[in-house]
Amino acid sequence: MPKDRFTSLVVALLLAGTAAAATPPVPPETVATQLRDAALAGHDIAFTWVSELTTRFGPRPAGSPNEHAAAQWAAGRLKALGFENVHIETFPITAWVRGQESAELLGATRQQLTVAALGESPPTPAAGLEGDVVAFASLKDLEAAAPGSLTGKIAFVTYRMVRTQDGAGYGPAVAARTEGPAAAARAGAIAFLLRSVGTDSHRIAHTGTTRYVDGKVAVPAFALSPPDAEQLERLAALGSVPRVHLFSSASYVTDAHSQNVIADIRGSAKPEEFVVIGGHLDSWDQGTGAIDDGTGTAIVVAAAKLIRDLPHKPARTVRVVLFGSEEIAQPNAPFGDFGGNSYVALHLSELPRHVLAGESDFGADRVYALGLPAGVHSGPFADSALRVLGPLGIIAEPAPRHEVGADVAPMQDKGVPGFALKQDGTRYFDIHHTPDDTLDKVDRAQLDQNVAAWAALTWLAADSGEVNFRAAATAAADEP
Amino acid sequence: MPKDRFTSLVVALLLAGTAAAATPPVPPETVATQLRDAALAGHDIAFTWVSELTTRFGPRPAGSPNEHAAAQWAAGRLKALGFENVHIETFPITAWVRGQESAELLGATRQQLTVAALGESPPTPAAGLEGDVVAFASLKDLEAAAPGSLTGKIAFVTYRMVRTQDGAGYGPAVAARTEGPAAAARAGAIAFLLRSVGTDSHRIAHTGTTRYVDGKVAVPAFALSPPDAEQLERLAALGSVPRVHLFSSASYVTDAHSQNVIADIRGSAKPEEFVVIGGHLDSWDQGTGAIDDGTGTAIVVAAAKLIRDLPHKPARTVRVVLFGSEEIAQPNAPFGDFGGNSYVALHLSELPRHVLAGESDFGADRVYALGLPAGVHSGPFADSALRVLGPLGIIAEPAPRHEVGADVAPMQDKGVPGFALKQDGTRYFDIHHTPDDTLDKVDRAQLDQNVAAWAALTWLAADSGEVNFRAAATAAADEP
Repeated sequence: MPKDRFTSLVVALLLAGTAAAATPPVPPETVATQLRDAALAGHDIAFTWVSELTTRFGPRPAGSPNEHAAAQWAAGRLKALGFENVHIETFPITAWVRGQESAELLGATRQQLTVAALGESPPTPAAGLEGDVVAFASLKDLEAAAPGSLTGKIAFVTYRMVRTQDGAGYGPAVAARTEGPAAAARAGAIAFLLRSVGTDSHRIAHTGTTRYVDGKVAVPAFALSPPDAEQLERLAALGSVPRVHLFSSASYVTDAHSQNVIADIRGSAKPEEFVVIGGHLDSWDQGTGAIDDGTGTAIVVAAAKLIRDLPHKPARTVRVVLFGSEEIAQPNAPFGDFGGNSYVALHLSELPRHVLAGESDFGADRVYALGLPAGVHSGPFADSALRVLGPLGIIAEPAPRHEVGADVAPMQDKGVPGFALKQDGTRYFDIHHTPDDTLDKVDRAQLDQNVAAWAALTWLAADSGEVNFRAAATAAADEP
Repeated sequence: MPKDRFTSLVVALLLAGTAAAATPPVPPETVATQLRDAALAGHDIAFTWVSELTTRFGPRPAGSPNEHAAAQWAAGRLKALGFENVHIETFPITAWVRGQESAELLGATRQQLTVAALGESPPTPAAGLEGDVVAFASLKDLEAAAPGSLTGKIAFVTYRMVRTQDGAGYGPAVAARTEGPAAAARAGAIAFLLRSVGTDSHRIAHTGTTRYVDGKVAVPAFALSPPDAEQLERLAALGSVPRVHLFSSASYVTDAHSQNVIADIRGSAKPEEFVVIGGHLDSWDQGTGAIDDGTGTAIVVAAAKLIRDLPHKPARTVRVVLFGSEEIAQPNAPFGDFGGNSYVALHLSELPRHVLAGESDFGADRVYALGLPAGVHSGPFADSALRVLGPLGIIAEPAPRHEVGADVAPMQDKGVPGFALKQDGTRYFDIHHTPDDTLDKVDRAQLDQNVAAWAALTWLAADSGEVNFRAAATAAADEP
């Protein structure tokens, strides 16, 4: 539907609800329901956003010209969409830059292996390095290797991630990616390989950040595509010791910067209180960051735009934050290295008036569960939200929601309650952190369902001025 | 099931049919049915074959050390399996060798594009080449471009292959791959791009051979992955002219060689007559040739092995031919450049006694139709075959079968009738000619169904000594 026709529809819907009695305010649930249905009726804000973002700028690794240009474009687009207080907040980072990279199985019949250097991992020597591959079923097995037992060798963790709807398979798998290089180095290994943390079976490797220990990543580290990981396992089963040559010319840029993009819809009754919704503009460097996290930014922008175009404003201010440099965040690295930290630093005085925050960063497939923070997980607000979201196929999470997303975590650490609209992640880890993260993976109908859920819930939170999410959360925490 | 147990089962089945009356021969249909059921009962010859072939040797491009080693291994394995007359027949080829290759979208925000140089296409200059991309919806549109109209530009055909069960979508799509570079050059273009000839949507490009015209491929030619092709189309729709840098260091080896591997089961009554079943051992260079055509070789070897292990031999000789250098065959190139031609040249005197030939080269998904040549497409032989194959979910093709496969085509040109066991190709072109052609794509149950069909039909053809396929085909051709 053209934007004009869509806007007219929203206005018409709301006038239908307000014309008869102009003075008494429309109940938040009524407006939320209308926003939900308007989003589902089909509009192109979200898809157009993610299409242009990924097409114009392609990959947007933190600190790259592409990320910077995308942020400029986003700010311009947010202004054009009619948001207030649109601005860019810059912060310094050390950028990691993928170089050339390769892996080759040596021997009489050579085979190229498909790998991706892990984010933050150092380059190999210019001539590459080579070693026999020693396989471990899990990180725990590698961690049990005696110091010196892998001298001159390449450690390889073969663990296969389990596919789940809620993404619970990621945790047990990703530990090998974050902690593996240090464990390999402790046993004397010259490099680290792991089966990609992913659920697909394509010749595409999944990158992702590995963790600094003592200020660095100890050895060059690579993810193998799933079929290549199985190839090495089968070769070992046939009785040979795979010997592999690895090369990476990755590098670091220590004086790089990234940025957050901010846009507000100023509240009518309590403009000093904020409901924050966000996603991240940066992406991994091999795909175009369509589902991680182009769609997240598209969903919150489109939801906010629907709210922005209503004839009246919500009680509280709705703030959209498009974070930078989410992907290479290091939990133990110096302050200011990623968008979530930067936001907290620059908005410290406002944080006590941040009443609720959420982030969309798990692809674009349908939302199936609502996670509310302690204190409002049950009760009138939850009941109202579920009446609006239920027809979208959304149920309540069984327990109060704690973690919301990497960018929002620093806010949550300062006491801001978080909410989640939990997406179906069944196919997310087929694509996550790969070159295959491209626009064609986005299902437009499911994208619209996300926008409907975010628009409705954001309105409810922003226009229910009487609900004190922070006090409720504090009270719930104080309960015995 | 272990091989020994499987062999015992077949022997027991056949003894059950023969013990009561040792003298009269068992009807071919009875043995074919028993072979079918034995194959379905599960055995590991076919899967073990394709697993070892793809794991030990990986990619097997024509003329490569990997292809040579695979042929040596195959011959050794065929001898060990008990076949007769096992030998390798070498022939000269010009090999094409992929080098480094890359494609980059130029401009303020650069993007790497996923490409694969087309087989036989020449390298770019060492510094690469760059030009504006001009898109054409089809080969026909490109062919209509005026001479000189693309001077300095890169021609790009955006045509999308249609997914079909029978592979009929391939023909209309592949013409751009084979004929595109020459058409681009005629209009003055400096390079040729096409959307991969494939049905998937991954960041994986589909290679394949492009055609020599006047003894060469005119310009460097590349396939783009489907998402990259769409990215260029979207950029153009946003109003920009994509400018792309292309690089390839592909090369040719003019004194290379390839080889066919032959193995026989000598017939009991008419050993001078041959039923030939084959597949090809070479593969494209980026995958490990699991479904193209590791499984084809596995299916015919496993089918023949079941026949080989029976207590009595078929009337005619069953010949397995594992062809070399199928993928880079040039229809108009000098004689001897691919396995199908070489076989005909070296077996010319035997060809009049080749009664029937078939090739498995369309993946490993289930067989759903039987294609018999003119003359026996209906009648007692077809009826018998369909009684045996029907329970496998196989129906008759509506018309007599003409084309059987690239390797068998030269035999057919000399009058050898061909048959086909037509496979479900719905997902074949998701994987075909890509790095993704790896063992994990093989469905073992469907592989076994193929072996069952090939074992049964090969037995019927070889043991129905009274059926003269050639005379029937000739008679059918003479009908008004």
